[in-house]
Amino acid sequence: MAARVVKLVLAYDGTDFHGWARQRDPAVRTIEGAIAEELARVLGVEPRLSAAGRTDTGVHARGQVVSFATSSRISPAGIQAALNGRLGPEVVVIRALVAPDGFDARFSATARAYRYVIDTAGLPDPFSARFVWHRPGELAIGPMRAAAFGLVGTKDFRSFCRHPGGDRSTVRHLQRLTISRADDLVVFRFRANSFLHQMVRSLVGTLVAVGEGKLAPGSMEAILRAGDRAAAGPVAPPQGLTLDGVVYGSPARPRR
Amino acid sequence: MAARVVKLVLAYDGTDFHGWARQRDPAVRTIEGAIAEELARVLGVEPRLSAAGRTDTGVHARGQVVSFATSSRISPAGIQAALNGRLGPEVVVIRALVAPDGFDARFSATARAYRYVIDTAGLPDPFSARFVWHRPGELAIGPMRAAAFGLVGTKDFRSFCRHPGGDRSTVRHLQRLTISRADDLVVFRFRANSFLHQMVRSLVGTLVAVGEGKLAPGSMEAILRAGDRAAAGPVAPPQGLTLDGVVYGSPARPRR
Repeated sequence: MAARVVKLVLAYDGTDFHGWARQRDPAVRTIEGAIAEELARVLGVEPRLSAAGRTDTGVHARGQVVSFATSSRISPAGIQAALNGRLGPEVVVIRALVAPDGFDARFSATARAYRYVIDTAGLPDPFSARFVWHRPGELAIGPMRAAAFGLVGTKDFRSFCRHPGGDRSTVRHLQRLTISRADDLVVFRFRANSFLHQMVRSLVGTLVAVGEGKLAPGSMEAILRAGDRAAAGPVAPPQGLTLDGVVYGSPARPRR
Repeated sequence: MAARVVKLVLAYDGTDFHGWARQRDPAVRTIEGAIAEELARVLGVEPRLSAAGRTDTGVHARGQVVSFATSSRISPAGIQAALNGRLGPEVVVIRALVAPDGFDARFSATARAYRYVIDTAGLPDPFSARFVWHRPGELAIGPMRAAAFGLVGTKDFRSFCRHPGGDRSTVRHLQRLTISRADDLVVFRFRANSFLHQMVRSLVGTLVAVGEGKLAPGSMEAILRAGDRAAAGPVAPPQGLTLDGVVYGSPARPRR
């Protein structure tokens, strides 16, 4: 039987996982490892997974997309039910479908959307603590928005990348960066064609330095030009970060 | 120095605790045990704690109230900061103050308010899973509200109690029981002078049986009259339950 490509959309609480990417040590719990292990059970053979976003330790997802080729006859709905029965509610397959031939969750993606949430209340909230960065005290939204304006566009984000590969491009197209506030929560939404390693958390840490008055809103240009991580602000912690969704098709089409 | 009574208001995620009440085995993690241990460190001597609600394993709180007498000179704010530094964000002291002489969190309370949340969506949500009962499928709100009407008042709730003591009264004054729906969530709010063991979860399980059409809305009277747990519906699981707050002072005063 010919192989089909199956596409899964996943939501997960990343708190107790060492990120997406499988580690050599099988005792290290990863999302990829958990999914691959269950798929091996269901399909009879372990598929090679492609993921749109390789989320780091402690980072969450509401719309991670994963694909794999399989010659199994099991329906996507059957795969979804089997995975959810074993991995839920920590990891949940929201949708499962047969994708067009040639679809690859990582290489077919035209954009990724991430959300970062900061809780600025004086005390942490046990009910949201796993999904926010608790950083008590006001942040000046206006200056952060002014700084964000200087980051949007096609730019070299090397200063906001943890481990830039020597010869790989660090140019990315940051399509959108919005900052909103609801009560004590400050929410950053990012969309780009793709992101460098720890790019969102580096951008958030730098914007927070602006919101605290430690950096001028106009300093983004100089930080980008430096091409050096030391020029940027600190890296925000992982628990506030969530991969919201992945865009396939025209990158010009806006999506909320 | 004379002893003062200190009052703490607590919020906690009860998922990873074996309830409020300390157990003989110190390896069993309880909220009372965690609080008492930290207070012993701060005050130099372990106080005897009184709590308004002895929450069960896996049950949460947004407004649990605890009191203890101490001759320590440490300010309530100092106690709050010390506890939050060690127990947060899982357990958070929201407020700490010196209470009037004779105040006792349990015996001075005139009413307790609990909330129970059911998620009726087809799939569980990793972001709220710790705090809801995921029970997929519609619930008929109208019949549940009709049944709830038959439960409010001063009644013998023996049929909704796990371990009624042979001679202790099982009469309680259920002051309020409301049911609301927001998208896939169904929220039950209860207020009573006090609650019997597993009373809220027994009431929710019975109301869900009504919402599923397995019990008639008019059957509450017969269940109450039976005075037998076997007459009621099943007990709802603990994770949907949260102690919202405690009322001190006039029990007639409504409070949201």
